[in-house]
Amino acid sequence: MDEPSFMDMALAEARAAAARDEVPVGAVLVDPQGRVLARAGNRPLELADPTAHAEILAIREAAKGLGRPRLDGCALYVTLEPCPMCAQAIALAHLGRLVFAAYDPKGGGVEHGPRIFDQPTCHHRPEWVGGVRESAAATLLREFFQARRIDSAPPLG
Amino acid sequence: MDEPSFMDMALAEARAAAARDEVPVGAVLVDPQGRVLARAGNRPLELADPTAHAEILAIREAAKGLGRPRLDGCALYVTLEPCPMCAQAIALAHLGRLVFAAYDPKGGGVEHGPRIFDQPTCHHRPEWVGGVRESAAATLLREFFQARRIDSAPPLG
Repeated sequence: MDEPSFMDMALAEARAAAARDEVPVGAVLVDPQGRVLARAGNRPLELADPTAHAEILAIREAAKGLGRPRLDGCALYVTLEPCPMCAQAIALAHLGRLVFAAYDPKGGGVEHGPRIFDQPTCHHRPEWVGGVRESAAATLLREFFQARRIDSAPPLG
Repeated sequence: MDEPSFMDMALAEARAAAARDEVPVGAVLVDPQGRVLARAGNRPLELADPTAHAEILAIREAAKGLGRPRLDGCALYVTLEPCPMCAQAIALAHLGRLVFAAYDPKGGGVEHGPRIFDQPTCHHRPEWVGGVRESAAATLLREFFQARRIDSAPPLG
């Protein structure tokens, strides 16, 4: 599968999250051979867990499956720019590559805010690219918040 | 109990982590009435989970116990300055207060590195103080790394 296909899979997870009334963000974690190790959508409300962002759930599931806390060479596809928590988790997990869809100027931590991977104290940096399937992901988020009449969206991650 | 007593409890969790060969960091999460909701030590190796820092485990346990993802008014005592992942999790959980012991210039995210709570895009800031039981926590970390002859410590959080 190619990168847009993995992102389509992540978008399906985001839509499933919206159907659960969670902020529609989805993630897919892929090993160096292109095998899907984990896929997840946001579940902070369902799990009563403020850390249950799609990225964290995917990283935890993939690491548990491999039986080790590091995911060297793996890639994460996520429908929204990761927040600082998730960006640091990506660094701690030694992910090799991050691909995200929509940018998040209000809550993102990669190209916005603390720009986690640009910090001199960041000990591992994945290569990363944003904007893959950007409009599909952004539309999904916009429609979710519009339907709930939330004029000023909270941090999205 | 007073703040140094909660920190002593967190130090006990840190010592227990060291005994499991995990980086010795411990955390205690306390509700506004001073009741302990969760206590945890680092377990990334044991759980094969790069996010299993003491702070994350304590936040997840406390939120699950309360049945909601926000911990308004609660306080977290942790033996080391939180890393950026944990600092952002503290913000997402709406914790009211953070007390930490040792400072972490190499990997911390509160007074060092990205200074998560100082970012304009940080949507919730706890009050925080560092240096409570600092020397006890720092000694524990130093002895842990010295015993393993790790001259250049990795990020500690």
